[in-house]
Amino acid sequence: MRFLHTADWHIGKKLHGYDLLEDQKKSMLDILSIAKKENVDAIVIAGDLYDRSVPSVEAVEAFNQQLIKMNLEEKFPLFAISGNHDSSTRLEAGAPWFSQTEFYLNTRLEQAFVPIEWEDAQFFLLPYFEPIAARLYFGDESIRTLPQAMEKIISEMKKKFLPDKKHILVSHFFVAGSEKTDSETKIEVGGLDGVPGGMLKDFDYVALGHLHGKDALHQENARYSGSPLKFSLSEMNQTKGVWIVETQPSICYRFVELTPLHEMTEVTASFNELTSPAFYQEMNREDYLQIQLTDRAIIPNMMNQLRQIYPRILSVERVNGREEGTKRQITLQKKNLNPQELIATFFEEMTDEKLTERQKIWIDEGLQNLNDWERKK
Amino acid sequence: MRFLHTADWHIGKKLHGYDLLEDQKKSMLDILSIAKKENVDAIVIAGDLYDRSVPSVEAVEAFNQQLIKMNLEEKFPLFAISGNHDSSTRLEAGAPWFSQTEFYLNTRLEQAFVPIEWEDAQFFLLPYFEPIAARLYFGDESIRTLPQAMEKIISEMKKKFLPDKKHILVSHFFVAGSEKTDSETKIEVGGLDGVPGGMLKDFDYVALGHLHGKDALHQENARYSGSPLKFSLSEMNQTKGVWIVETQPSICYRFVELTPLHEMTEVTASFNELTSPAFYQEMNREDYLQIQLTDRAIIPNMMNQLRQIYPRILSVERVNGREEGTKRQITLQKKNLNPQELIATFFEEMTDEKLTERQKIWIDEGLQNLNDWERKK
Repeated sequence: MRFLHTADWHIGKKLHGYDLLEDQKKSMLDILSIAKKENVDAIVIAGDLYDRSVPSVEAVEAFNQQLIKMNLEEKFPLFAISGNHDSSTRLEAGAPWFSQTEFYLNTRLEQAFVPIEWEDAQFFLLPYFEPIAARLYFGDESIRTLPQAMEKIISEMKKKFLPDKKHILVSHFFVAGSEKTDSETKIEVGGLDGVPGGMLKDFDYVALGHLHGKDALHQENARYSGSPLKFSLSEMNQTKGVWIVETQPSICYRFVELTPLHEMTEVTASFNELTSPAFYQEMNREDYLQIQLTDRAIIPNMMNQLRQIYPRILSVERVNGREEGTKRQITLQKKNLNPQELIATFFEEMTDEKLTERQKIWIDEGLQNLNDWERKK
Repeated sequence: MRFLHTADWHIGKKLHGYDLLEDQKKSMLDILSIAKKENVDAIVIAGDLYDRSVPSVEAVEAFNQQLIKMNLEEKFPLFAISGNHDSSTRLEAGAPWFSQTEFYLNTRLEQAFVPIEWEDAQFFLLPYFEPIAARLYFGDESIRTLPQAMEKIISEMKKKFLPDKKHILVSHFFVAGSEKTDSETKIEVGGLDGVPGGMLKDFDYVALGHLHGKDALHQENARYSGSPLKFSLSEMNQTKGVWIVETQPSICYRFVELTPLHEMTEVTASFNELTSPAFYQEMNREDYLQIQLTDRAIIPNMMNQLRQIYPRILSVERVNGREEGTKRQITLQKKNLNPQELIATFFEEMTDEKLTERQKIWIDEGLQNLNDWERKK
């Protein structure tokens, strides 16, 4: 059989304050197009479907529309699990009905031991879980860490292995030694809770979720799909997409890239260049931008001016440092400024903008509250 | 055919701070038992399934278990709508899959015009909606009130009427002139948005939700089922249950009562009686209690003592007034107390208890914040 492996959709996620929902809707539709074009027999989603345990109404609606399209309209079997970002209870509400149309959504550990048999493969859908869930399930007080739990879980799964089938594990955890980015929530405790890759050796393929880079793990039989979109600046140079996995004659997989609605790019230029039509008309101004500003001078109202041209600025860095920066800092330390003045000067230093009247009021209120609190201690 | 009509489950609701979930689980199971015993062909739930748009995880789990039991295990067709307390988008997430097993859950106005044909009846499932939804649906700017909307909606529905079928409307609104309790959220604006009962005359039966008393409306062909549980002291003397509706030979209905996990009762007694084993061993101490206290004297630490015996006290009223109450009030007005003292005295007056040290700190902080805020104005 042939299946599509994706994960970490994080529907409803924001990127530096920008709502990603339109980007996510396009990615979801593109994944469906790939599934159709590649004529896959099933779509695997390895957890973190939503970004939050209580997603916004808009996120729920967008994701639900996608599920309807994939499963009810295009009739793709879906093999999905909950991740550490999902609320398993909220997610599972419709699951008993979903399974009637081959949409399997596992949210509880015990469901992982009932494999889905599909053509020449057995799929074990193991949702994200805490070690305590395994401790309770096995009634074994000695289970304290994820590797201890996984050892038991895998040995339990192996009892269900049919010898003439391929054995596919779908799961959501950190495999020890994998490469992280800035956008994943740390789930391992004190470095102890990474699952050693060798533990997964008995599966023909492990469809992983959790890490957002497709190359996070270098292991023949186990892959992270990565997220469909870039969720942090540290992922700027990653290629995003999905794996197409074939089970015959033996397991093989290839990566199919996704084109985002808005790319994430870095631009190095001066303020004058950035604001000159000749320059920005050549650029894709709609991209999520990291700007490396070459200027050293203070530019009044810089961010507002840039945002009028570039609507999706993630950050602006001063690639050559800042004029008078060091000198000023010394001045600051010498002068005996009051807290309001100190904050105003710092704000100007950092943003090249003056505080608005409203911002000044907020700062006054904040300082007042701090004073009151100090006095009461 | 024969169907069960219920509504206003408000799963996850609290009563004077007490979590009702266990009570609600029992009610839900009892409703299922009635459905089985009465051998109904379908169960109608006329809105306000949950108490909040984002119900707790426990509420979601309890309600979902009930849906699985009713629809997947016992195979009852379910005809349900969202009410003003539900989030239609969150609720509808599984709906396209639910309908595969005859669980129809309508959350959008346009769905109301596709009747469910079931045996000798047509069910029009009209969810709670705002007039603006009708304005947009009909593209008619003149629709400003619920009656205006309903006129159009009903005339649209009548186009779908099959003459040899019974016509059942399932809906969630306030019918003008119905009797309210304290536990419903007011949805009509300025008295204009009640639907005149006469407008419903073309339906053989209107299964209503929203008002919590089964006798809220006296109209031959339209009934509120009321909530399965008492949700306020004003409902103490109401009978709670469900309607069993028969469509043949002509529409008739009868009420089947529900027995709650804990009754709501009123007891009139003195503090000495209430705390004497001979007295309370005769009582059902687990009830939700309104206590009418006959004492007039101040009783130190009264609520704590009573709560140790009666775990579900909703309120304590002084049926004979309070000793020295009037005299004290005069004293208070005469004395020049500082705010802390004034609050402490008032608290003692009202509760017969002294402020704890922690409560005193909270009051000090509250007064301090108030001072700060006054000063800043």
